[in-house]
Amino acid sequence: MSVLSNERPIGFIDSGVGGLTVVKEAMRQLPNEEILYVGDTARCPYGPRPPKQVIEFTWQMTRFLLKKNIKMLVIACNTATAVALEEIKKSVDIPVIGVIQPGARAALKASNNSRVGVIGTLGTVKSDSYKNELQEKAPDTYVTSLACPKFVPVVESNQFASSVAKKIVSETLKPLKLENLDTLILGCTHYPLLRPIIQNVMGQQITLIDSGAETVNDVSTLLDYFNLNNYEQTNQKARTFYTTGSPKMFKDIAHEWLQIENLNVFHIDLGE
Amino acid sequence: MSVLSNERPIGFIDSGVGGLTVVKEAMRQLPNEEILYVGDTARCPYGPRPPKQVIEFTWQMTRFLLKKNIKMLVIACNTATAVALEEIKKSVDIPVIGVIQPGARAALKASNNSRVGVIGTLGTVKSDSYKNELQEKAPDTYVTSLACPKFVPVVESNQFASSVAKKIVSETLKPLKLENLDTLILGCTHYPLLRPIIQNVMGQQITLIDSGAETVNDVSTLLDYFNLNNYEQTNQKARTFYTTGSPKMFKDIAHEWLQIENLNVFHIDLGE
Repeated sequence: MSVLSNERPIGFIDSGVGGLTVVKEAMRQLPNEEILYVGDTARCPYGPRPPKQVIEFTWQMTRFLLKKNIKMLVIACNTATAVALEEIKKSVDIPVIGVIQPGARAALKASNNSRVGVIGTLGTVKSDSYKNELQEKAPDTYVTSLACPKFVPVVESNQFASSVAKKIVSETLKPLKLENLDTLILGCTHYPLLRPIIQNVMGQQITLIDSGAETVNDVSTLLDYFNLNNYEQTNQKARTFYTTGSPKMFKDIAHEWLQIENLNVFHIDLGE
Repeated sequence: MSVLSNERPIGFIDSGVGGLTVVKEAMRQLPNEEILYVGDTARCPYGPRPPKQVIEFTWQMTRFLLKKNIKMLVIACNTATAVALEEIKKSVDIPVIGVIQPGARAALKASNNSRVGVIGTLGTVKSDSYKNELQEKAPDTYVTSLACPKFVPVVESNQFASSVAKKIVSETLKPLKLENLDTLILGCTHYPLLRPIIQNVMGQQITLIDSGAETVNDVSTLLDYFNLNNYEQTNQKARTFYTTGSPKMFKDIAHEWLQIENLNVFHIDLGE
């Protein structure tokens, strides 16, 4: 593989801004890497959509980035990972990584009482992807899953630190508090923006697993394994964000969350 | 890939007992996996040997395990990783993992002041593998390396908790104490057996990176990536250890370190 090819960007895709929690961690751990991001904000949330449609949308984002010559694709969205990862991984000739296996692996490592909770979108919870992954690897694990359909809209509307957010989180997670869990997987990349509230509601004794942050370990491992690291230092500007929604709204959340000034955010249209 | 192939064992190779520190962590994180281990105790230490010979010995262990139909190979030895990983990885058709990249990655993640120490065998330190890996990824990292040729013999002779060990570690590491390091890579899989002594000598403020334990994350990631996980529960007996030295001595250390009774340890001859 030529040196030049290692300077190609890594692509990240998500239904909206949630995947930025993965990008934030990637920027910290892999500062040399160029990043391209697509957030399908206009059609977010993916959670309640039928799997067939989520697969179609995920392919649209993937094709957009493949044309830009990415060297690796990160499906930084749990809903899309659950239904589209295997198909896309088989069909393209670059490494493709999802967020579910890294999250499940970290939860098994963290849990002492083998009682793990999973919160995610309706799509992710319905797919049982986390439950299957956890129980295939450690059959004795008790897994309880809860769909939190109100969380993503709160984050996408930039209200993730509001009193509305506190109320929604507190009411939604109530049933999980009786489950004696010691580990809770944030099975949606939007949820780390609600992390302080979730930790507060669930109590300090519970370990929260940020599936997105865990995924960056996999990105790093596979960059090493396939000799794809970029050893040239990348200009900070070499991070470009595309959204199907409002660049202004996207920029506001990205700025608040990633704390980078002057983000390159562009509007794109996917599909018709 | 057939389901059957996923039940194939993972192979681990080392110059002696050091790789057991990797196996111990693998057994914890990947309890379903069958493990085959080769320790070349009779020809240990590899550290002072010329690279060409280390490559030859590493190939002998690799060929022994390939005949046993392993699905993945872990070079659980820093000296062998430094000189033989790239060649073996290119030549065989199963995933091959070394211990240096995972250790370097973990050190970069852990260090706050970008001053990292590396201790290893003469071979590992001479190869500059850690230094190159660290500085390619984060050019501003200050790296100081120290060969500790007396450590491996102390471990292989099962004296790793003795007062002799304390004296040797304390004298050897003296020059590192003036370096203002916040992270120290245990760049030899034998060294975690000396970990309590090393931590005591270097002080509690320093983060020790166990390159072997970090490697298990990579094993797990690549099992996921290549769909190679064994989802059948493995009998504890499905762990087999081969040594070119004394099975009795090997068993004693393995028992003390892994705390498993009734280890299957067999003597083998490699080379002539």
